[in-house]
Amino acid sequence: MEAIIGVLTISDRASRGEYEDISGKAIIEYLKEVISTPFKVEYRIIPDEKEQIEENLRQMVDSVGCSLILTTGGTGPAPRDVTPEATESVCEKMLPGFGELMRKVSLEQVPTAILSRQTAGIRKNCLIINLPGKPQSIRICLDAVFPAVPYCIDLIGGSFIDTKPEKLKAFRPGK
Amino acid sequence: MEAIIGVLTISDRASRGEYEDISGKAIIEYLKEVISTPFKVEYRIIPDEKEQIEENLRQMVDSVGCSLILTTGGTGPAPRDVTPEATESVCEKMLPGFGELMRKVSLEQVPTAILSRQTAGIRKNCLIINLPGKPQSIRICLDAVFPAVPYCIDLIGGSFIDTKPEKLKAFRPGK
Amino acid sequence: MEAIIGVLTISDRASRGEYEDISGKAIIEYLKEVISTPFKVEYRIIPDEKEQIEENLRQMVDSVGCSLILTTGGTGPAPRDVTPEATESVCEKMLPGFGELMRKVSLEQVPTAILSRQTAGIRKNCLIINLPGKPQSIRICLDAVFPAVPYCIDLIGGSFIDTKPEKLKAFRPGK
Repeated sequence: MEAIIGVLTISDRASRGEYEDISGKAIIEYLKEVISTPFKVEYRIIPDEKEQIEENLRQMVDSVGCSLILTTGGTGPAPRDVTPEATESVCEKMLPGFGELMRKVSLEQVPTAILSRQTAGIRKNCLIINLPGKPQSIRICLDAVFPAVPYCIDLIGGSFIDTKPEKLKAFRPGK
Repeated sequence: MEAIIGVLTISDRASRGEYEDISGKAIIEYLKEVISTPFKVEYRIIPDEKEQIEENLRQMVDSVGCSLILTTGGTGPAPRDVTPEATESVCEKMLPGFGELMRKVSLEQVPTAILSRQTAGIRKNCLIINLPGKPQSIRICLDAVFPAVPYCIDLIGGSFIDTKPEKLKAFRPGK
Repeated sequence: MEAIIGVLTISDRASRGEYEDISGKAIIEYLKEVISTPFKVEYRIIPDEKEQIEENLRQMVDSVGCSLILTTGGTGPAPRDVTPEATESVCEKMLPGFGELMRKVSLEQVPTAILSRQTAGIRKNCLIINLPGKPQSIRICLDAVFPAVPYCIDLIGGSFIDTKPEKLKAFRPGK
């Protein structure tokens, strides 16, 4: 069975078409590069509105059936940045280790990485991860956390996902 | 005065007797190995039920008088994993530094360490720490955080605990 | 326009005049040493009372117009330590990366750094950061997080702050 992976770009300007969503495209590119099992992408662009983010996350899990959702944008300290709050409000469980590790590896690049409030959590059979807004930071974060993603999705009963070992080694304990 | 240390194994299968609780035993072994002052252990095995975990934690602090409780199990992302939520609900204060450090040292072993949601907190005069379910991971986590445990218990008015310096050096600032 | 920076010492004993507030003074010293742009300090000493901490933080943001508030004291596990809870209750957004990094650098000094519950958050146009109580730990924490502080204040619409590059390099992405 094909996995469904959500890519949710959260940006006032990209959602109004003021610029191209290179972040969302960078995520899809990354997924195609590292995942070896069949999957399709549910891709959406929405503005930095908490209720709209929540509604889209709920739909993408409850109706579309995503096993993984990667958001980009809205994780900073600015007043319009509300992605982590929206994520937390739709999740049943939070996974603080994702945010900690993404900030740690980003901090090796820029001291302002501590301003990122990115988090991750679980709604039903879906893992939701907040990624930063900048394409180069997205890759650094995904390289750090993605090895744990397929096993996490196993544990919550989502679709089976595996990676191309020459690109990125997914880790499943005891295997 | 003898300290009372709680060891709470949280596991559906171990609580039904389907397998031996090697994790709880590993914790007790560790305590005997590193602690030099008199203590006795309050040991319990219960299933992954949030209310039962909360009730046992409350009893072990309020009635049994534990100064330290070490839980094992139930910290992952699976639906039945509710130990961190139960811990948070009975604690007056949370100590995020414990979870951060335990994930950091575990991450040096396996990339799936970010899936652990372990935390620590304080109820009255008792420090409650969530440990992972696997015996080898328990030791790695305890080695990392235990040097700060005796001083923490001092600060919250629990029983005096000291360690065998050749095994593990407890740190008390200004001493 | 001159920035207003709050320094809030939270200590039962210092507030009763039982000892000199060397922590608050160390913070002011540090600010003078590293900041190159004009600023004035709003300095207060109060006891470890949650409501009083909250009231002072609200006033210092809403009436005094602080763009940055640095608190010292009250971040440990003891019953009277309530600074993180008071901070969280007046903030609209929390920034977990500050606490994570401050604990990480403090942990290189003492194993009891994991007992610190320091955090940071945003209220309106003001960044509030909890610092430890001990002067030597204050400097270690400020050296770690301050490079990200001016850009954070830009993002939330506070006053422009810059640093003396020979003392500490503030980082503004894209500049």
